[in-house]
Amino acid sequence: MKVKVLQNILGVNDQIAARNRELLDKNGVRAINIMSSPGAGKTSLILQTIKNLRGKSLAVVEGDIASTLDADKIGEKGVEVVQINTGGECHLDANMLSIALAELNLKTIDLMFIENVGNLICPAEFNLGEHRKVMILSLPEGDDKPFKYPLMFTTADVVIVNKIDLRPVLDFNLEAFSAHVRGINPDVKLFTISCKTGEGVSDWISWLLSELKDEP
Amino acid sequence: MKVKVLQNILGVNDQIAARNRELLDKNGVRAINIMSSPGAGKTSLILQTIKNLRGKSLAVVEGDIASTLDADKIGEKGVEVVQINTGGECHLDANMLSIALAELNLKTIDLMFIENVGNLICPAEFNLGEHRKVMILSLPEGDDKPFKYPLMFTTADVVIVNKIDLRPVLDFNLEAFSAHVRGINPDVKLFTISCKTGEGVSDWISWLLSELKDEP
Repeated sequence: MKVKVLQNILGVNDQIAARNRELLDKNGVRAINIMSSPGAGKTSLILQTIKNLRGKSLAVVEGDIASTLDADKIGEKGVEVVQINTGGECHLDANMLSIALAELNLKTIDLMFIENVGNLICPAEFNLGEHRKVMILSLPEGDDKPFKYPLMFTTADVVIVNKIDLRPVLDFNLEAFSAHVRGINPDVKLFTISCKTGEGVSDWISWLLSELKDEP
Repeated sequence: MKVKVLQNILGVNDQIAARNRELLDKNGVRAINIMSSPGAGKTSLILQTIKNLRGKSLAVVEGDIASTLDADKIGEKGVEVVQINTGGECHLDANMLSIALAELNLKTIDLMFIENVGNLICPAEFNLGEHRKVMILSLPEGDDKPFKYPLMFTTADVVIVNKIDLRPVLDFNLEAFSAHVRGINPDVKLFTISCKTGEGVSDWISWLLSELKDEP
């Protein structure tokens, strides 16, 4: 019974996700769903991108259970931002995104970040209609996480290792981690960055620019 | 419709949780549910406790979506451990714990740790029948998390701030964080520790011993 209901929800979700994708494509918006544990650096990555990506129009959809802390930080930079408070739900779904899309002037947007709820599990199960799924693992979380949260690591198009500036004070085997992630997800793009110092951010920006060129 | 199903599940869960609690009490087992984001230090806290808590018999129930990495680490220390692989579920529930309890010789156990799935959201919604809920926030996750994940911070009996050894290299306002947590959860016990260096672990052990004295 429980599984049947879940399947229904996912069926509806995928239908709405397909409509979101159509709407984004029609308006030439490239949408990127950013997922991670709480505090791994989703907002920091968006803020670094706002600072470093020139000549493109950005918008951000912020997902949180409660509060507008992250949306406020982004709004301060002059970027259009819509907050979704899920009121307890542990992930965004396609319907929440469709409501947010209706609030934005899509014609004027080149790149949209969708910052998901901080959670390494449930967000991986719900397509929103995005073009790319990006996940962030921060160094302090440990190099064993692909074994323990496999769906997130296998569904991501891009895995970003953040807080690389902490490498001298932490035990994290970056080589073993990267080899394992590539093993379970051979097409993944891997970036190592520090949103605090800016190290590695330029590679991420180059990838974003190549994504925007690929647009139909 | 969706909400109705969820209420049914929670109703059944609470009934099974009450039976778990009865079974634990009858056998004189004190059970502690440990929750946090991935990599915040649940297993490390258990390993530090195994090392420092003398004269008490421990057992551990390990919850993970996949893998037995953490259970293996605990088993190596000679502590009885039961692994629950949730197969995708983002939290433990009371039924999973009841199955694990049947695998243990409860009569011989003083203290049981239940290591929940790494997730700052869903585990807070499900009672297992435990006596205490302990949550860990690690310093790198940031001091704004009580605003964004309020249920976890208000339902916890104990909040542990881990990785305090990283304080010199991170921006984390411990005073503001502690004041906010006490504001939304006045009865909370707060500990600041480093499972890496052992700093603050003795306060945690003293609290555990006082818990074991309170047993009926």
